[in-house]
Amino acid sequence: MAHDAPLSPLAPAATPDIPPLDGVRFAAGAAGVRYAGRTDVMLAILDEGATVAGVFTKSKCPSAPVDWCRARLKGGKAKALLVNSGNANAFTGKLGADAVKLSAKIAAAATGASDRQIFIASTGVIGEPLDARKFDGVLEKLAKQARPDAWLNAAKAIMTTDTFPKLATRKATIGGVEVTISGMAKGAGMIAPDMATMLSFVFTDAPIAAAALQTMLSKAVQGSFNAITVDSDTSTSDTLLLFATGAAKKRGAPKIEKASDRRLAQFKRALDDVLLDLAHQVVKDGEGARKFVEVTVTGAETAKAAKRIALSIANSPLVKTAIAGEDANWGRIVMAVGKSGERAERDKLAIWFGGVRVANKGQRDPAYDEQDVSQIMKRQEIVINVDLGIGAGAATVWTCDLTKEYVAINGDYRS
Amino acid sequence: MAHDAPLSPLAPAATPDIPPLDGVRFAAGAAGVRYAGRTDVMLAILDEGATVAGVFTKSKCPSAPVDWCRARLKGGKAKALLVNSGNANAFTGKLGADAVKLSAKIAAAATGASDRQIFIASTGVIGEPLDARKFDGVLEKLAKQARPDAWLNAAKAIMTTDTFPKLATRKATIGGVEVTISGMAKGAGMIAPDMATMLSFVFTDAPIAAAALQTMLSKAVQGSFNAITVDSDTSTSDTLLLFATGAAKKRGAPKIEKASDRRLAQFKRALDDVLLDLAHQVVKDGEGARKFVEVTVTGAETAKAAKRIALSIANSPLVKTAIAGEDANWGRIVMAVGKSGERAERDKLAIWFGGVRVANKGQRDPAYDEQDVSQIMKRQEIVINVDLGIGAGAATVWTCDLTKEYVAINGDYRS
Repeated sequence: MAHDAPLSPLAPAATPDIPPLDGVRFAAGAAGVRYAGRTDVMLAILDEGATVAGVFTKSKCPSAPVDWCRARLKGGKAKALLVNSGNANAFTGKLGADAVKLSAKIAAAATGASDRQIFIASTGVIGEPLDARKFDGVLEKLAKQARPDAWLNAAKAIMTTDTFPKLATRKATIGGVEVTISGMAKGAGMIAPDMATMLSFVFTDAPIAAAALQTMLSKAVQGSFNAITVDSDTSTSDTLLLFATGAAKKRGAPKIEKASDRRLAQFKRALDDVLLDLAHQVVKDGEGARKFVEVTVTGAETAKAAKRIALSIANSPLVKTAIAGEDANWGRIVMAVGKSGERAERDKLAIWFGGVRVANKGQRDPAYDEQDVSQIMKRQEIVINVDLGIGAGAATVWTCDLTKEYVAINGDYRS
Repeated sequence: MAHDAPLSPLAPAATPDIPPLDGVRFAAGAAGVRYAGRTDVMLAILDEGATVAGVFTKSKCPSAPVDWCRARLKGGKAKALLVNSGNANAFTGKLGADAVKLSAKIAAAATGASDRQIFIASTGVIGEPLDARKFDGVLEKLAKQARPDAWLNAAKAIMTTDTFPKLATRKATIGGVEVTISGMAKGAGMIAPDMATMLSFVFTDAPIAAAALQTMLSKAVQGSFNAITVDSDTSTSDTLLLFATGAAKKRGAPKIEKASDRRLAQFKRALDDVLLDLAHQVVKDGEGARKFVEVTVTGAETAKAAKRIALSIANSPLVKTAIAGEDANWGRIVMAVGKSGERAERDKLAIWFGGVRVANKGQRDPAYDEQDVSQIMKRQEIVINVDLGIGAGAATVWTCDLTKEYVAINGDYRS
């Protein structure tokens, strides 16, 4: 079933145009995995010598492709990425592992690579066997068609309940040479740390060793994909892969071996930006979402406590439905702080909506004007600040509101 | 605002008739706390010598009445219980503590008791000061009107978004003498361990010392009020109090000092029954609920792991919306098992809906007939079993589905 929900009201005004990135080519096709009348398979082909890093779901029941990628990551080298939508190939037992093997074999043959350098991700329904024979013939054609400028087609082929393709790009210099980081993501529900994305694939032409890439990626997800939540539900398939083609070496970019290399400073900021941009797009396409919500907690005992409290707020159905109803119901924020399990002192707590303080020192702020806040709650982007007043721990997370449309979308996904 | 949602389709066919319980009298009135045209205050008056035990929210930001009751519990004696609906007197700072003190003073004067033997609970909106002066005059009248048979009026006065009053009663014998346990509860949303109830008050005429009562109550809540969830949100006000009037002593019931007393065996079972009955009624009145869901996890590493997994399933928005949509989406059960953080082995996991096994040993059960399960999902009571196949830990929890009505009710509660 291709989901036909209307475009999210939070969708970016325009899809960013992603220029070719040296060393990677894309193609999208229709393998008939589940959907009719749309593409459902994407192949990315990397030039020889590309390195790879990855972060995956923390689910104790990961999908067969996640098992496969984790094992392949040890080599640090990648030649191709195969992604299908419509079937997650999760909870499919031995059949699932076999399907991944066969997919890798077909992709390896199509791209002239070893199957150990094939990375695979699947998204869609859980528990139904994936017939990998459907890729036979299709991938060969895609390998021939692959082009450096097919980013948008690739991003569209990996969508499930997404209402818009998600793309982002940034530039940085390493040793005076300009490099690019560009990525795509899909995901709209079952989004929660850790990993939030469902699927995201990021590419750079910078020449960076796999170990350094991994260190940077593991750090960068903390403030982006691991700081977003749509519904607190964690997929069995969440996968974020970062590929470095190294093609910028031809233009004089130095080969980087260590994540601590100072020449990476700008690159790290650009990577953070790309990941945060993509993560925000995932939230903005949250199933049924009409409002984008930023929750910042300060003054907590530790940064970890701050994040746990922020997520308790961002995941609370009562907070999320209040925001959907444009109700500045700060009592529910207090509830969510209280249930987080982290230390809080009622008489030191302060809460702001859109910069207006509504509660202070254990009670309603006497200066707070309900009319002002009522206007703020009508906005499409809602900013909530909570200060606990007991320490220096701070964290920001992002979520969306919980609407009747979320229930409608998820109440008949399979039917 | 009195919520005017239609009667829950899961409501019991008839409200149980609660006979008088020797040693306690009830009265309900309208103090105009928030609602118009309905009662909003309940007074229970206990005969001299009643003992009391209590269990409260684990919120780090509890309401002023919770602070008050916790402190009063140390005495172990109770003379009266005052409950209001419409205002939770939570996050009201010093004003809140003052309001509780004034309420206790008025109730003490009306009942001829020391204010240290007055127990207080409030439910409703958080963060708005409660004007306790509204109880002045009202409680005196209620004290005069209080009758042993006014259980239903009392249960109605403590309702907020509840669509039906919640009452339960059981009998047991202690040393050959029949005693009664009867209780009431309110709560429909913001229901999650620990405590799930929002408010519940249970009374017995058995003569039991406060310490023994407390031991039994703390144990009994684990399988009842601490095993239900509507929306994973924990109120700042959750309060469960158990009062023993001791009046059965006149009929020859022995005074019980210790919870380990063997003569309590039947009483303990009856107490479990009353609490579970009330807890189930709370779930059946879950905001917007149309289905009652029992989740049993077996074969987990420990009982604690089993409960955590069961709650992960019961709290998952994707599982709950699938049930609302009558979709046997066991993939989402796998997802919820996986995200719980507890040990699970994909290839040993089995899942049943209404007794039909849909998944086994890491994949879809080949024998499972979608038509059978489709019929099962149309039922009003859905039973989900999950066996992890790795240990002997087991737990059962109860929840309801997540519907558009939940969002509607909570999106405009204050407006």
